[in-house]
Amino acid sequence: MKWNRKDLIGIEYLGREDLEHLLETAASFKEVSSRAVKKVPALRGKTIVNLFFEPSTRTKTSFEIAAKRLSADVLSFEVATSSISKGETIVDTAQNIEAMKVDCFIVRHSVAGAAGIISRNVSSAVINAGDGCHEHPTQALLDIFTVKEHFGRIDGLKVAIVGDILHSRVARSDIWGFGKLGAEVCVCGPPTIVPVHLESMGASVTYDIKDALKDADVVYLLRLQKERQKENFLSSLKEYSMFYGIDASKYRMIKKGAIVMHPGPMNRGVEIKSEIVEKKNALILNQVTNGIAVRMSVLYLTIGSIR
Amino acid sequence: MKWNRKDLIGIEYLGREDLEHLLETAASFKEVSSRAVKKVPALRGKTIVNLFFEPSTRTKTSFEIAAKRLSADVLSFEVATSSISKGETIVDTAQNIEAMKVDCFIVRHSVAGAAGIISRNVSSAVINAGDGCHEHPTQALLDIFTVKEHFGRIDGLKVAIVGDILHSRVARSDIWGFGKLGAEVCVCGPPTIVPVHLESMGASVTYDIKDALKDADVVYLLRLQKERQKENFLSSLKEYSMFYGIDASKYRMIKKGAIVMHPGPMNRGVEIKSEIVEKKNALILNQVTNGIAVRMSVLYLTIGSIR
Amino acid sequence: MKWNRKDLIGIEYLGREDLEHLLETAASFKEVSSRAVKKVPALRGKTIVNLFFEPSTRTKTSFEIAAKRLSADVLSFEVATSSISKGETIVDTAQNIEAMKVDCFIVRHSVAGAAGIISRNVSSAVINAGDGCHEHPTQALLDIFTVKEHFGRIDGLKVAIVGDILHSRVARSDIWGFGKLGAEVCVCGPPTIVPVHLESMGASVTYDIKDALKDADVVYLLRLQKERQKENFLSSLKEYSMFYGIDASKYRMIKKGAIVMHPGPMNRGVEIKSEIVEKKNALILNQVTNGIAVRMSVLYLTIGSIR
Repeated sequence: MKWNRKDLIGIEYLGREDLEHLLETAASFKEVSSRAVKKVPALRGKTIVNLFFEPSTRTKTSFEIAAKRLSADVLSFEVATSSISKGETIVDTAQNIEAMKVDCFIVRHSVAGAAGIISRNVSSAVINAGDGCHEHPTQALLDIFTVKEHFGRIDGLKVAIVGDILHSRVARSDIWGFGKLGAEVCVCGPPTIVPVHLESMGASVTYDIKDALKDADVVYLLRLQKERQKENFLSSLKEYSMFYGIDASKYRMIKKGAIVMHPGPMNRGVEIKSEIVEKKNALILNQVTNGIAVRMSVLYLTIGSIR
Repeated sequence: MKWNRKDLIGIEYLGREDLEHLLETAASFKEVSSRAVKKVPALRGKTIVNLFFEPSTRTKTSFEIAAKRLSADVLSFEVATSSISKGETIVDTAQNIEAMKVDCFIVRHSVAGAAGIISRNVSSAVINAGDGCHEHPTQALLDIFTVKEHFGRIDGLKVAIVGDILHSRVARSDIWGFGKLGAEVCVCGPPTIVPVHLESMGASVTYDIKDALKDADVVYLLRLQKERQKENFLSSLKEYSMFYGIDASKYRMIKKGAIVMHPGPMNRGVEIKSEIVEKKNALILNQVTNGIAVRMSVLYLTIGSIR
Repeated sequence: MKWNRKDLIGIEYLGREDLEHLLETAASFKEVSSRAVKKVPALRGKTIVNLFFEPSTRTKTSFEIAAKRLSADVLSFEVATSSISKGETIVDTAQNIEAMKVDCFIVRHSVAGAAGIISRNVSSAVINAGDGCHEHPTQALLDIFTVKEHFGRIDGLKVAIVGDILHSRVARSDIWGFGKLGAEVCVCGPPTIVPVHLESMGASVTYDIKDALKDADVVYLLRLQKERQKENFLSSLKEYSMFYGIDASKYRMIKKGAIVMHPGPMNRGVEIKSEIVEKKNALILNQVTNGIAVRMSVLYLTIGSIR
């Protein structure tokens, strides 16, 4: 397969073959990070810009490490201290940096659609590193990679995503991704943050955690964003934790051989108890490790498609 | 010509030959940024420090990209979180970093003269990246480079600089630079921010935009710094825009073949209307592109002159 | 000697041979920083993370330069904008970054013991770059290196450390380090910040600056942290300066051939007068220079010990 997309804006816009090609390329890059010299010259002399309009140290760091392991030059354009605060539009900002002959933008923004707007206005590669409540495609790719690495397949698996689905770009990307690759996705949480319309994305909806857990091969816990409590989506963290947080008793509802995942950072004691994090089938750090391989794959393919 | 200046503090202190040598060297570096592998080993193993006492993401990014394309190691010394806030003098700060055996400082400071003071107290190269209302020499070099690239010469051209000349280090550097290379410079704007004493720098002064535009080969629009309005230099942005902002009707006053430039970031709708930005003869992004070549030239020559 | 410690948490935990091996390795790296190409490939393809929970531009910059001169990739994980502020534990943060297959953490934290806690929970190398009032081992190593470079030995020298010993991690590391290598250490300052129990670390205690200075080969002045005044440890900076600050008259009490040192940043006029900084035997900038060599040594040995 020849890759010819310069951008990665959302999993929604990819086909099954695209996803498989991204995952296979990631698999071939994974081994680089366990070498003594963790570096390949694939993107030497390319310039990659982290354009983060919203702070995110983890995702930025993961992309930065991925870029460096491909030998690219990587810069952070810190928007807090930048011309944006002088009233420049995001398109002007991106076009200005592009004029410095950069090859790729990694964009995070609090507004859904921001990476897409930039991608249509520059000829460099654009990778969405999270745009509002829309998508976070590299997170879904690393999640899928981790599940596939564990089970050897995605087809036919049952994936339960638990938490604040409404506000989660991770959930949206994962629903698209696992669905396109043949998994059954079920979403679960309190009705205020798990709207029925998610069924239109192909996921089944339940408000009963027992329902969600009993058949799941993958239990995917979202981070509970405490800000949402202020907005009256939740009555209390304690109540959320009691009904939907995974502790020893809810863990016993999970079937043998299932795995537990979390995009991080975790609220220990809220959506997941510390004792669950330590379980052998909690693959949370594997997800982080695979994030590097997946991002190397995305950078390599998108930048490689240009010219 | 053998380059033997370790510092670039201001265009005022350079001769015509110096300017021409900097521009020729920049021309030879420009092609690097259009290669697949955008990198030459010219400054491998050199350490360059971005010492920014005033935030500036664009200029910092441009220097950082230039340094990386020359294979130098480049670091940002972030002054907000540094010893400066612990009461250290700028000379102590610079001498301390220099003791780590760095080769070059890129200095931005809100006070005129800061880069000059540092340059006299270190033996590393020092490049002024903007000091208060004094100079911003690499901006002038990239402006001149862009004009020369377009017209093939500077001699005999007419350059109109429009806006807040009084507070603009860009204007001061451009007046020196274009003047030394044989252009006629005219400055234009409201009398409160275009003082008559600029004539002593060799520029003619007018308050009438028609006058400024009618013969100009280069129309150079400065960014209107909204802060100035608070200081009562302007009655209102709207009035400024009406009298001095370039819109379709003022654009028609510009002669055929003239070009429009802006140092960025633009206030669309204030000093320039969006429709003008899109014109083919608006070379604003070319300026940004040429900024990389010019800064590669400056880094290469100043660092190369040491030892 | 084969180095087999993956961490450097404190000088307290090292033996004389460890210290000597670190210093010899530093000596062999010092020359790299005076080459035209200041770079050796020793750590090519290794990933080093600056994990600073407390701001410190100088120490961070010194480690960053050291890492780059060894050809490592170095990243800053900026904690202010990170998941820490989202309530993640420092161990979760470190383990997450480690899962990206990094080789070394450089940790600064305002709490004593932080680097130690991280080191026991990751298999990467961990270097303490200052933890609360506990230790700052690379500062002590560069101090010792500088003294040894000057006098050719540490054994038998008399070292007077003057200032706020109570709150100083630098003082604690230096007391351990100079003591282990056979120097006599005397600490001096006002009784509120120079507690008698320091004698249990092997230092003699005096409140009389004349006593401290008269036999010293090394006069080590600590930075007076102005914050302490608010906490009522000092009656006034002026009084401190009068009794313990080194000015011309106190300088005359120092014996011939002695050297003056300071970890920086200096409060000129408080613990040291400007005229003393300029003396030939004030080795303050030498300390900074040697910081690079010492940190190259520490990075090289700790990272090299893994696997």
